[in-house]
Amino acid sequence: MPELLSPAFIEALREAVTADHVHRDHERRTAYGHDETEDLSFPPDVVVRPRTTAEVAAVVRLCGQYQVPITPIGARTGLSGGALSVHGGVGLALDRMNTILDIDERNLQVTVEPGVITQMLQEAVAAKQLYYAPDPSSRGSCTIGGNLAENAGGPRAVKYGVTRDFVLNLEVVLPSGEVMWTGANTLKNATGYDLTRLIVGSEGTLAIITKAVLRLIPLPRENRLMLVPFRNARKACEAVSAVFRAGITPSAMEFMERDAIDWTLKYVTDVTIAVPHDVQAHLLVEVDGNDPDALMKDCEAIMTVMEAHECGEVLFAETTLEKDGLWRMRRRVGEAVKSNSVYKEEDTVVPRYELPRLLEGVKEIGNRHGFRSVCYGHAGDGNLHVNIIKGELSDHAWEHELPKAIREIFELTVSLGGTISGEHGIGLVQRPYMDIAFSPVQLDLMRRIKQVFDPKGIMNPGKVLP
Amino acid sequence: MPELLSPAFIEALREAVTADHVHRDHERRTAYGHDETEDLSFPPDVVVRPRTTAEVAAVVRLCGQYQVPITPIGARTGLSGGALSVHGGVGLALDRMNTILDIDERNLQVTVEPGVITQMLQEAVAAKQLYYAPDPSSRGSCTIGGNLAENAGGPRAVKYGVTRDFVLNLEVVLPSGEVMWTGANTLKNATGYDLTRLIVGSEGTLAIITKAVLRLIPLPRENRLMLVPFRNARKACEAVSAVFRAGITPSAMEFMERDAIDWTLKYVTDVTIAVPHDVQAHLLVEVDGNDPDALMKDCEAIMTVMEAHECGEVLFAETTLEKDGLWRMRRRVGEAVKSNSVYKEEDTVVPRYELPRLLEGVKEIGNRHGFRSVCYGHAGDGNLHVNIIKGELSDHAWEHELPKAIREIFELTVSLGGTISGEHGIGLVQRPYMDIAFSPVQLDLMRRIKQVFDPKGIMNPGKVLP
Repeated sequence: MPELLSPAFIEALREAVTADHVHRDHERRTAYGHDETEDLSFPPDVVVRPRTTAEVAAVVRLCGQYQVPITPIGARTGLSGGALSVHGGVGLALDRMNTILDIDERNLQVTVEPGVITQMLQEAVAAKQLYYAPDPSSRGSCTIGGNLAENAGGPRAVKYGVTRDFVLNLEVVLPSGEVMWTGANTLKNATGYDLTRLIVGSEGTLAIITKAVLRLIPLPRENRLMLVPFRNARKACEAVSAVFRAGITPSAMEFMERDAIDWTLKYVTDVTIAVPHDVQAHLLVEVDGNDPDALMKDCEAIMTVMEAHECGEVLFAETTLEKDGLWRMRRRVGEAVKSNSVYKEEDTVVPRYELPRLLEGVKEIGNRHGFRSVCYGHAGDGNLHVNIIKGELSDHAWEHELPKAIREIFELTVSLGGTISGEHGIGLVQRPYMDIAFSPVQLDLMRRIKQVFDPKGIMNPGKVLP
Repeated sequence: MPELLSPAFIEALREAVTADHVHRDHERRTAYGHDETEDLSFPPDVVVRPRTTAEVAAVVRLCGQYQVPITPIGARTGLSGGALSVHGGVGLALDRMNTILDIDERNLQVTVEPGVITQMLQEAVAAKQLYYAPDPSSRGSCTIGGNLAENAGGPRAVKYGVTRDFVLNLEVVLPSGEVMWTGANTLKNATGYDLTRLIVGSEGTLAIITKAVLRLIPLPRENRLMLVPFRNARKACEAVSAVFRAGITPSAMEFMERDAIDWTLKYVTDVTIAVPHDVQAHLLVEVDGNDPDALMKDCEAIMTVMEAHECGEVLFAETTLEKDGLWRMRRRVGEAVKSNSVYKEEDTVVPRYELPRLLEGVKEIGNRHGFRSVCYGHAGDGNLHVNIIKGELSDHAWEHELPKAIREIFELTVSLGGTISGEHGIGLVQRPYMDIAFSPVQLDLMRRIKQVFDPKGIMNPGKVLP
C-alpha cells in the first residue's frame, strides 16, 4: 500500500494531531501492533494518538481521502485480535482520550472518553456510592472504549448485564468523518433504530467511539463470597442452573476446573488455598445487596443447592482481604495458563444448563485430537473459556489440525443453542468460524450494514466478517 | 395501487394461507385498520392471518413480487400508529400465531410466537416461579410481537429493563421472504453485529418477528406497594431521583398528576381512595425481592426520602386486593383520560432528575398555547406521558396550532438530554418530529439501514423515518 508512505498523507496527519502524536518508529509501531491474543503481531504503518473528537474526525477523513485502513486501538487487552492492524495503515490509539468527563449523581449517569480504564471508572463512581457493574477480568488495564467495541462482560454480568446493558448513548466518528450521537441520555428509548447497540460489539468496524454516556446504579452495600469445591465437575455445572431455579440470582457464579486453580495458585504468590487432591472443579459464588440478613439467607439457600450437588467443604471469605484474594485468583487464571504454555482461548457460550454437556464435549474432542484444555469462566451465563494448551502438540498439528478441533468445539456450542463468542468478540481469530454461527443470509445482512457505514472499507478491515 | 386488486395476487394469498384467512370484507378491514392511537383509521386492502412462519414468508414473498405494502399487525393496542396500514396493501395480522412454544425452566428462557398476550406469558411463567418483567399497561391485551416491535416498557422497567433487555433471539422473516434467527439463545453474545436489537424497536419496518426467545428471571417472592401524595408536584418529581441516590432501586416508581387520579377514580368504579383536596400529585412506589425484612428496610428508607420532600400521609397497600386496586388505577389512567376528551398522548422521556423541569415546561407551553394536559408515567425512568386534552380548543387549533406546541414539548425534551419516545415508538404520529431527535446524518444512516433490509420499501411504509 504505497500511499501509506505518501509524505502528503503523513504531513496531513501531523497537521491534524500535531507531529508529537504521529509515530512511525519501530518501537511504537510494534507496541501498538499486538494485544493479548496469542502471540500475534500486526503493527500499523503509523500510530496516531488524537486527543479530541475533532482530531479523530480529521484523521478518519484523511484515511478516507487517501484510502488508508484505520484500526482503532484501546488498551490492547483484547483476546480476539480486534485491535490488530492486519492491513497496516493507521493505528488510531485512543489512550490519550482518557478523561471521566462528568459523573452525574442526580441522574446516575457518567460520561467518559473511550480511553478511561474500566477500574478507574468503577472506583471513581464507587466513591460516590455508585456502581458500574461490567467487570472484565482485565479491568485494571482495559478501557471503556474496548469494552464497548467488544461488548465485554465479566463475572457480574450474570446479575447486572454486559457492557451493552449499561450504555445509554455514544458519540461516534463515522468512516465519513462525520460526528454524531447514537441515541439519547435516557433509560428508555423507542425513537428510531437502535444505533447505540449496533455500534456496541461492532469491534471498530462501523465507527470510532469518542464518548460514552453510561448508566450507573446504586452501589450494593454488602456482598458475600464463597468458594465451593466439587469432586465431580459435572455436578458443579449442574449446581449452577439449580441455584437460579431456587430463586436466587447471584452477583457472580464462576467455574474453574482443577487445573485452572492449580496453575493459578502457582502463578499468584499471594493467595493460598488448600485444595484437596480429589477436587475436580470449583464454583466461586457471590451475592450482593444492601441487607446483610437477606444475603445470609441467600447464602443458606445456595448452600442447600450446593450440598444437594455433592460439594465439598465451602470456604467463606470472611474479610475484604480474603475476598480480594479469591477474586485475584479468579481474574488471573487466563494469565496463569498463558504463562504455562502456548495456548489458544475459545470464548464459548451456551444456555447455562447445557454447560455440563459443553464441558464434556470439549474434553471428548480434546481426547480425540490429542490436546489438553483448561476450562473456566462465567458459568452463570453459560460462558466457558476453553484454553487449549499446546503442550506436546507438534507445530504442524497446532497450525493445521487444531483448527478442525476448534471447529468441532464451535459446532457443538452452536448445536447446544449457543454461539462462538460470549464476550471476547470475533476480531481476527474467530473470523474463520463465523459460518458456524451464521448462515449466508445473516452474514450478507451484516456485510451490507457494514457497507452502509463504511462504503470504502477503511474501518478495521479484516475483522469480524469473513 | 391497482395491483392490490389483482385477482392473481389475491388468489396467491389464498393459496399461501388458505382462503379462510384472507379477508377483504369491510368489517374485518376496518377492525384491523385502527389501534389505540387517537381515532385514526387506515384499513388494509386485505387482511391476512397466517399461522406459521412458512405462511408469513410466503405472504411476504408475494408482496415483494407484486410490490404490495405489508403492515404487521399485533393486538392493535399501539399508541403511535405503528400497525396502521397507511398505504393500504396487506395487513398481516399475527394473532393466530399465539402459542407459548416452550418454557425452559432449566435455562430460564421461554420461546413464544408473536401473538402471545403479554399477561398470558407472565402468568404462565409465574406458575413456574419465573418472571417476565416487561409490563406495559395494556399487558392484558397487547402481545409480545407488538412489545418487541415498539420496545415496550412499563412500570417495572426501572428495575428490570425494557422489552429489549429480555430478548435473547428472534426468528424473523425478512422482506425478501428469507427466514433467519438474529442471534443465539445465550445471555451473553459478542458474535457479529447485534441484529436482535436492531430488530427490536424497528416497528415492523425491517422484518416480521415470527418467534422470540426471551430471558426469564426468578420470580421475586415479595413486594410492597405504597401510594405517596404530594401537595407540590415538583417535590414529587424531585423525590424520585432522591430515592435512587439513597441506594434503593424500586421495582416501580410511577408519577400521577392530580387530574390523572381524579379522572381515573371516576372511570374505574371498583377502586376508592380519599384524595385530600390539596394533593397535587402522587407517586406509586413498589419494591420487590425475596426477603420481607429487607423490603421493610427499603420502605423505611423510601419513607425518609419522601418525608424530606414534604409528602402527605402514605397509603400502604396491605393486601393483594389493595395492591391490585392501586395498579388497576394506575394502568387505566390512559383509558380514563381518553374517555373524558379527545386527546393526544406524547411519550416524552428525559434523564430522571430533569422530570420537574419537563413537567413545568409542559405546563408553561400549555398555558401559552391554551391547552390543558394530564401528565403521568414512569417517573423512575424519566418517562412522562403527556396527555393533551382537546377540551375547548377549536378543531382548527387542534389540527394546525397544536403541532407547534408539540414541537416545543419535544424540543424541550431533547434539550434536557431526552428524546421523543420512551416506549410507545415513533410509528405514524411521532414521525413528523423525528428531525428534533435526530440530525440528517443520523436519519440518513437509519434510512440506509432500512434499505439494506427492505430495498423495495414494502415493509410498513410510512412509519418511523420521515
